[in-house]
Amino acid sequence: MKLIGLLMLFAASFCAAQNSGDFKPATSNVLDAQYPRVDGNSHVQIRFKAPGATTVKLNFWSGPKVDMEKQADGFWTVTTPPMAPGLHYYVINVDGAEVSDPGSTAYFGGSKWASAVEVPEAGVDYYQPKDVPHGQVREVWYHSSVTGTWRDAFVYLPPDYDTAKTRYPVLYLQHGGGEDESGWIRQGKANFILDNLIASGSAKPMIVVMANGYATRAGYVVPDMTGTPFGSLEFLKVMQERMGAFEDDMTQALIPFIDKTFRTLPDREHRAMAGLSMGGMQTFQVTFNHLDLFSYIGGFSGANGIAMMRSSEKPDLKTAFNGALADPAAFQKKVHLLWIGVGTNEPERMKAALESLNASLDEGKVQHVFYESPGTDHEWQTWRRDLKDFAPRLFQSGSESGAPR
Amino acid sequence: MKLIGLLMLFAASFCAAQNSGDFKPATSNVLDAQYPRVDGNSHVQIRFKAPGATTVKLNFWSGPKVDMEKQADGFWTVTTPPMAPGLHYYVINVDGAEVSDPGSTAYFGGSKWASAVEVPEAGVDYYQPKDVPHGQVREVWYHSSVTGTWRDAFVYLPPDYDTAKTRYPVLYLQHGGGEDESGWIRQGKANFILDNLIASGSAKPMIVVMANGYATRAGYVVPDMTGTPFGSLEFLKVMQERMGAFEDDMTQALIPFIDKTFRTLPDREHRAMAGLSMGGMQTFQVTFNHLDLFSYIGGFSGANGIAMMRSSEKPDLKTAFNGALADPAAFQKKVHLLWIGVGTNEPERMKAALESLNASLDEGKVQHVFYESPGTDHEWQTWRRDLKDFAPRLFQSGSESGAPR
Repeated sequence: MKLIGLLMLFAASFCAAQNSGDFKPATSNVLDAQYPRVDGNSHVQIRFKAPGATTVKLNFWSGPKVDMEKQADGFWTVTTPPMAPGLHYYVINVDGAEVSDPGSTAYFGGSKWASAVEVPEAGVDYYQPKDVPHGQVREVWYHSSVTGTWRDAFVYLPPDYDTAKTRYPVLYLQHGGGEDESGWIRQGKANFILDNLIASGSAKPMIVVMANGYATRAGYVVPDMTGTPFGSLEFLKVMQERMGAFEDDMTQALIPFIDKTFRTLPDREHRAMAGLSMGGMQTFQVTFNHLDLFSYIGGFSGANGIAMMRSSEKPDLKTAFNGALADPAAFQKKVHLLWIGVGTNEPERMKAALESLNASLDEGKVQHVFYESPGTDHEWQTWRRDLKDFAPRLFQSGSESGAPR
Repeated sequence: MKLIGLLMLFAASFCAAQNSGDFKPATSNVLDAQYPRVDGNSHVQIRFKAPGATTVKLNFWSGPKVDMEKQADGFWTVTTPPMAPGLHYYVINVDGAEVSDPGSTAYFGGSKWASAVEVPEAGVDYYQPKDVPHGQVREVWYHSSVTGTWRDAFVYLPPDYDTAKTRYPVLYLQHGGGEDESGWIRQGKANFILDNLIASGSAKPMIVVMANGYATRAGYVVPDMTGTPFGSLEFLKVMQERMGAFEDDMTQALIPFIDKTFRTLPDREHRAMAGLSMGGMQTFQVTFNHLDLFSYIGGFSGANGIAMMRSSEKPDLKTAFNGALADPAAFQKKVHLLWIGVGTNEPERMKAALESLNASLDEGKVQHVFYESPGTDHEWQTWRRDLKDFAPRLFQSGSESGAPR
């Protein structure tokens, strides 16, 4: 055997050790797209056509950032190291232009329609469509006197909604910064998670309302934010304005609209709110300011209001949240569940913020759940798991599982 | 006044003649995106960041294809000539890579998530959300024994569906090739068109079902179509297989699911089908093969089955459509509306196909409507107008407006 043959054999065995050789189009692809592909060992292959480009890079937002290699046919390709399970946003950088991959379904994230690749989690199917009764997702439009505009929202109705004729509790479930009301369905698969939890009897049938988290009060003009750094004072000022408008829209326009339109149980005992990242901050702001409206609270990789953007110092429960937690016993009587969660692979600052809140709650003896998602980052797999843990604890009044622990 | 001042004045007046100077972000933009922009004279400005690119082009699928100019800040810009009203798909070509514009909402078209810019039509608001009762759009999942998969569909329910407790007729409304079940809502604004038509009393309250037009029978594997030319025999073979599978899925899985799930009037007298482009061809195939199921038929820039892809010769009514039109009197007794439409600015081949079908129908004395949308291309403005003309003619049995003319 000649040297070149040996080298090829070596190269082949090296590749086999890396890739399981069974690459298949990702489930997140558009119809007929052969790439991205994923193998059984969670390697991802990306292929992108850019015949005239000088450099093409693949940047996962939370994951590898790698140079792609030009092939003779004008396509650029790359195979990643093994990825964590879940849906990973990525961008292709073509000679400095950050663009989406036409092979991927577009998911609204990062304030644009972004690419993402779904890496399966072995042995897990709780977010897959299964042979169980399916709820419907409705898109509804409501006119908001707060914003002065028509706004839309996605509403999940449990499978028996049209036949049971009963009333249901409601979970308000918010997306993250740069995402929109489609996120929990398209990226999160919240409808399939609820279908499966309800079918197995783990969660009570409930309505889930997913609103757009961006709102501005009528007359307010958002300044041109081009070039404004994320987290800067200017950025936070606009965010604060928007969060206040969202709070008003939700409590003054959305909730009344939902209670008028659907067969809800329209009281605080049957109303929950949770959200991810920015949506978690909104949840803490809205619920703590309106404990007359909510009795279940969830912060997924985000909590503690806008203050969290500024500092990861341990909150002082005497003064945080307008003092709502200063008297834990009084708080506990009102709030049946206070739930916070974070992925163990999230950025240090995010973990620190959630952990310091957890520590404050522990020290203040405020009953709560602190959930850590093993091996996942600030990404949708963390939030799918959060919802799977959170939803079964809702509206179980009288039983242990719904009580805070 | 110095020469330089005069020159600036001249330049300013020149620009004013071109642009009305009131550029505003397009309504099709994502949140906060300042570009694309549209002025009062329907000029469109596009801006795209590609600091390292050598050439950047803007290609409207049905419209101008122009070079963009590099600015000092790494952005490329261009202003188009005045555009026709409506939603125009476009692609940015960056050094040979065809990509979407992050400033645009992504619409599923051309088998990818494409960019598009909405150019307003002066004096027209029939597809805008207005202060009228709004129907809901539901996303539903059904398991198809034809495809062996879970499939989803969008369903528009009229505003009074939850309160009136009556039964409704159903329009099945299909997207075009390379689009999906979201097209009629996202691009077409079908929900707002129906809301407005129903509010004014022009159209009967109806359910509109928008299914995914791509289906394959369980076990069939779609060949890798990379590089297969549109309209080639190989392309048509796969398309024919898919259209057959779609026909079976619709008649054997979807219609029974809809009639079981919603309060429909489940008979041919109260069931219509229409579609655009490929969806029009599917409409003609499905309805003519199943006149026991449908009594209203619409082909929007597409009709005449897959045969239309092969030839624009005048169809022979004696043999076309399996002979369903050979006896016009018998056909007329069954079908209350046969409607075809095309935009006057569509490609010659498309116009020729619809016009020759129109001529055949005229010669055969088959009552039908032939609608021409003035000044619009093979684009969504044509199909919005089609729906606006078509929907009021449905389910008006006993009145003139619903009768074929």
